[in-house]
Amino acid sequence: MDGLMMEYPLTIDRILNRARQFFPDKEVVSVLPSGAKHRYTYKDLYGRVVKLSHVLKALGAKPGDRVATFAFNHYRHLELYYAAPMSGYVLHTLNIRLFPEQLEYIVNHAEDTLVFVDASLLKAIEPLARKFKTVKHWVVMTEDGKLPETTLSPVSEYEALMAKAGTEEIFPAVSEWDAAGLCYTSGTTGNPKAALYTHRSTYLHMLLEGQTDVLGLSERDVVMPVVPMFHANAWGVPYLSPNIGAKIVYAGANVAPEALVKLMESEHVTYAMGVPTIWIGVLQYLREHKLQLPELKRMLSGGSAVPRAMIEAYKEEFGITMVQAWGMTEMSPLGCTCRLKRKMEDWPEARQLDMLAKAGIPAPAVEVKIVDALGNELPWDGKSTGELAVRGPAVAKAYYRNEEAKGQFTADGWFRTGDVAYMDPEGYINIADRTKDLIKSGGEWISSVAMENAIMAFPGVLEAAVVARPDAKWDERPVAYVVRKPGASPSSRDILKSLESHFAKWQLPAEEDIRFIDQIPRTSVGKFDKKVLRTQARAS
Amino acid sequence: MDGLMMEYPLTIDRILNRARQFFPDKEVVSVLPSGAKHRYTYKDLYGRVVKLSHVLKALGAKPGDRVATFAFNHYRHLELYYAAPMSGYVLHTLNIRLFPEQLEYIVNHAEDTLVFVDASLLKAIEPLARKFKTVKHWVVMTEDGKLPETTLSPVSEYEALMAKAGTEEIFPAVSEWDAAGLCYTSGTTGNPKAALYTHRSTYLHMLLEGQTDVLGLSERDVVMPVVPMFHANAWGVPYLSPNIGAKIVYAGANVAPEALVKLMESEHVTYAMGVPTIWIGVLQYLREHKLQLPELKRMLSGGSAVPRAMIEAYKEEFGITMVQAWGMTEMSPLGCTCRLKRKMEDWPEARQLDMLAKAGIPAPAVEVKIVDALGNELPWDGKSTGELAVRGPAVAKAYYRNEEAKGQFTADGWFRTGDVAYMDPEGYINIADRTKDLIKSGGEWISSVAMENAIMAFPGVLEAAVVARPDAKWDERPVAYVVRKPGASPSSRDILKSLESHFAKWQLPAEEDIRFIDQIPRTSVGKFDKKVLRTQARAS
Repeated sequence: MDGLMMEYPLTIDRILNRARQFFPDKEVVSVLPSGAKHRYTYKDLYGRVVKLSHVLKALGAKPGDRVATFAFNHYRHLELYYAAPMSGYVLHTLNIRLFPEQLEYIVNHAEDTLVFVDASLLKAIEPLARKFKTVKHWVVMTEDGKLPETTLSPVSEYEALMAKAGTEEIFPAVSEWDAAGLCYTSGTTGNPKAALYTHRSTYLHMLLEGQTDVLGLSERDVVMPVVPMFHANAWGVPYLSPNIGAKIVYAGANVAPEALVKLMESEHVTYAMGVPTIWIGVLQYLREHKLQLPELKRMLSGGSAVPRAMIEAYKEEFGITMVQAWGMTEMSPLGCTCRLKRKMEDWPEARQLDMLAKAGIPAPAVEVKIVDALGNELPWDGKSTGELAVRGPAVAKAYYRNEEAKGQFTADGWFRTGDVAYMDPEGYINIADRTKDLIKSGGEWISSVAMENAIMAFPGVLEAAVVARPDAKWDERPVAYVVRKPGASPSSRDILKSLESHFAKWQLPAEEDIRFIDQIPRTSVGKFDKKVLRTQARAS
Repeated sequence: MDGLMMEYPLTIDRILNRARQFFPDKEVVSVLPSGAKHRYTYKDLYGRVVKLSHVLKALGAKPGDRVATFAFNHYRHLELYYAAPMSGYVLHTLNIRLFPEQLEYIVNHAEDTLVFVDASLLKAIEPLARKFKTVKHWVVMTEDGKLPETTLSPVSEYEALMAKAGTEEIFPAVSEWDAAGLCYTSGTTGNPKAALYTHRSTYLHMLLEGQTDVLGLSERDVVMPVVPMFHANAWGVPYLSPNIGAKIVYAGANVAPEALVKLMESEHVTYAMGVPTIWIGVLQYLREHKLQLPELKRMLSGGSAVPRAMIEAYKEEFGITMVQAWGMTEMSPLGCTCRLKRKMEDWPEARQLDMLAKAGIPAPAVEVKIVDALGNELPWDGKSTGELAVRGPAVAKAYYRNEEAKGQFTADGWFRTGDVAYMDPEGYINIADRTKDLIKSGGEWISSVAMENAIMAFPGVLEAAVVARPDAKWDERPVAYVVRKPGASPSSRDILKSLESHFAKWQLPAEEDIRFIDQIPRTSVGKFDKKVLRTQARAS
């Protein structure tokens, strides 16, 4: 028997309407390329999205068309996050740090028809433009409103289009099952694969994130999302923040520690979000300059494993709670966040930190299980390790136009993440490693994540990344790349000695495999680039 | 173009599965009729719900059947909240305080087939049983497991059935659009009307409540829902609490202030929920006994207007934040909760209290508007007053089997609440009154709620209720029924004097219309019973 409740579709327009009605004067602050700040309110945002809807239509977008962005974090990018899906199109955020061949593949695979590009990024995309087969029009987003010289064509300037746009609402009715967003993963093998989000998945993902124990974001927060808007659906924060009425602060292109710290101070940021490497740099900067950030209460950190030592340092030295998150582009992207349970509040601090260094407890409506190679479910005993599989209303059921990777979606409705993990009896996920990052030695596994964490806990170490090198006898052996803190000089022997209490002897790297370097290479989204390190390790 | 995300139905089984997996050892504590406490865990609850599913099937329930309860708040009632919908039936919570004729109407209208009744309530329902035309089986819930003598037939004892029940999961697949719950309003005119909740509406309502700025309930909370489980879908708390892993404390039948205070102390309650009249009594008790409740941080209060003076008293004298909520059975039931915005944090306390005495900001996915008698939308200007209309995924689109009230559902998809309200520019709802409680005098309106609030702010006043009496010249005039605090003796003149600064002279009651009584009569769900008072006022 059907119930008798309203068939109210869960669509993205609900979000912006809520912001406009209940938080009209809350601000969106964007740092521009010159360093100047742009600021306007959610009421302004709404009015601009209405106009942008006219612009998209005038440029010839048809229902379901992919509208691409190639841009940093700022208010115009946010406008596109709403105007595209609210107008019946699909927002496709291009990762500005991809290799040209990947961008070419992605734009043609997605069949993007419009591309919105930052003026500061023109040089990166111009050489590729003639290879994009489906793009009908380019729009350049500038600081001064003047279209720079460009080889792109046909091309318009964003504000010139907005100035002529209508102001009446022309949003079409959309179904909650309609596509709303398209996001490619920065995969390291095969062609990039994409998740095609629905209005429903986007709305539900936002409600999941909004739970008190998931992100816990409040109207009283000032949120600074350093996670790029061109990556992993921007963690869903472009939707969550307006819905709950939090002020947003966008750093733009400059995410150097000094710039971020000054911005957090001047805009009274209470909640900052980004990948661990960003927060390693900020930590270093705060220490060097003996600064505190009294208004900053929480940091969300995810995208790769968060070092236990960093969680501890922010808490002890700065009173800031670092919440670890784990997710994947295919999951909209949030899977879990890590918080202590009530019964852990009285635990000794070291034991609490052990918990906080885990990936955490899945958000509501995110189901997880651990399976062995045959697909059998493994117990949640704190040790049985296998592949993590997930399902839920904000998880992909297939990749967009991709047959080769369909094996990741099981017949009984689960997505196999490719992450190797175990569950503890409390339901906390422990990501042992990405499948491809595990080190297989003598028939056993070594977790690169665990070893990195242990090395980064060593006082004189700033960063560390552990990868495998081929070995004739053992198949693979670990190599640790280590960046020393300025002024510190730990030796390979010191570090090895500190590892002895955490690892079996056979797991330890050889002394010459502790290699000191100046900086760990980064991927397009700021994670440690282990592909580059593996190549180095193999060559040496 | 459809997106490519999982078609994962939003169903109630997800909730209990989450509790079992991530919070297996969190407790449900129930005070039994003898005063003894029953306690078990969410893991136990899950196992019992599996067994109860077998019991329901064995008793002959068919898909879509209405399974009724006639019970106080306790763990078995909670088991039915899950087992009925998870087994494909509809949970129908009967209000134990209704008049016999209303119960007879409701059970026959709903066509309940099974009724689960507390042993302590047998005497209330036995005389009616032969008038219930569709009930096939009765189940009695007892403290000692012994079936008491009863005229009900056929009848079984709950634990005797559970002892024989299977332990394998036999839950059928359900659609998110399937009916899950049925709840009649305790309307004062016409026959009772019912909302028929879906799995989807129940699940979404839970996610809305779980937002940080809505209820803000956390795994770290110990929640005591004093709101009856037989009323207004129990405010959705039987679903929210297990989903987020909060410990639940049920007071059972004894909700006297002393019992509640002792229970909150012994079970470390951090978050208590109930109607204002409950908290008026608790406040009085705490003051009289010079007690504090240091672990209690928040109280949710709704169902009728929350006196500003009470919010202030809890904050100032006890450090407890009282969050006002407003909703309706037809809304699952939550509409809004009241919290200060960031910009109000620096306001003077009196101005903050003015805000906190409002109904609050609608939860996400609860849309509101104010309409005049012709259905035209009114501005949010803090004064334009009209009927409040709402819509959203957890709002009824029709009453169950009821044609006479279909005018409350508009053709363009809104539910007309029957509440008279205005919106302020900040988006806070101000419920001026129930339409039927407004006092129409000389062509103008007087808000009974506003006057009650003002009288209850007077130091020597415990409670006050204001109703209309007929008047030949003015149509209606206000009559204030006032309960003095023990030991206090404010006069009519004192009270009138204090009202002069808040009301126009024509709005004030006559001195003889301030009437002191010993207690304000209560409705079946603990609200002030204005129907009784109106009859008194008319008679005098």
